[in-house]
Amino acid sequence: MTIILGIDPGLQHTGWGIISMKINQLSFIACGTIHSNPKDSMAQRLQQLHDGIKQAITLYHPHEVAIEETFVNKNNISSLKLGQARGAIILSIALCGFDVAEYSTNLVKKSVVGMGHADKNQVAMMVKTLLPSSNAAGADASDALAVAICHAHQRTFTQLTKKVPA
Amino acid sequence: MTIILGIDPGLQHTGWGIISMKINQLSFIACGTIHSNPKDSMAQRLQQLHDGIKQAITLYHPHEVAIEETFVNKNNISSLKLGQARGAIILSIALCGFDVAEYSTNLVKKSVVGMGHADKNQVAMMVKTLLPSSNAAGADASDALAVAICHAHQRTFTQLTKKVPA
Repeated sequence: MTIILGIDPGLQHTGWGIISMKINQLSFIACGTIHSNPKDSMAQRLQQLHDGIKQAITLYHPHEVAIEETFVNKNNISSLKLGQARGAIILSIALCGFDVAEYSTNLVKKSVVGMGHADKNQVAMMVKTLLPSSNAAGADASDALAVAICHAHQRTFTQLTKKVPA
Repeated sequence: MTIILGIDPGLQHTGWGIISMKINQLSFIACGTIHSNPKDSMAQRLQQLHDGIKQAITLYHPHEVAIEETFVNKNNISSLKLGQARGAIILSIALCGFDVAEYSTNLVKKSVVGMGHADKNQVAMMVKTLLPSSNAAGADASDALAVAICHAHQRTFTQLTKKVPA
């Protein structure tokens, strides 16, 4: 059995979702959202994201970790902020001893719904269909579960340095 | 005496510079450049930056840390990459117990040269004038020393949670 942690990164809200994969059977384990406080300094906010990711890894012992390769189109300042959150999260995962698989939003959607341009509601519906126990997941956590599902589907083709249990 | 670490962040090359401030006297202590390997994964590259920053902090015990608030104008992908490097560096500093002062490129230039639109050569010249022992500093390390000088000039006005020696 392989336990996969999927992450939908964001400076204010970062979703995370844990699933297990046994042969081709996917099962929901846990999910949640890490919030950083906009009133705090950037250093404090990035540490809040780090603490949340570290806690999820410590509690659920994933074997592999995947993150969404999000791009914002609005402006460079938004890209820089999202980049800072992603950088802090990827470093947090690396410090726990993992490499990180990165998937584009379109690949996540295609992998879960079958279409690269599916809307957010279609993705959420399919996550609930594939992982019925995740019914109560919020939007960010649901997106994170979609990343985990995408990784489960893609992992055979992924050339990653893995940390697989002995 | 206050020891200040200045950082000029970048995914491929991150400059760092350490100065001391005693009343209004600035002195050069050390500087260098951390390189990440473009052939490695993002997680490995961010960990290389983290290891370099942690090593500088462990060796030189700064009391305060400042970073340049760089914006790239080229495109969102560049902003996202720079953001990831900055996020990883700011988190590395936070994990060492520090908050981070952030200064815009224009404020750094104004603080060191006296003009917000000074060119890179003018900044490098002034860094060498203010800190003669830093003569051999490379471009990124020199920019990092400029950030440290800017912080030294601005710190009286900065509302930061500080870690000052007892």
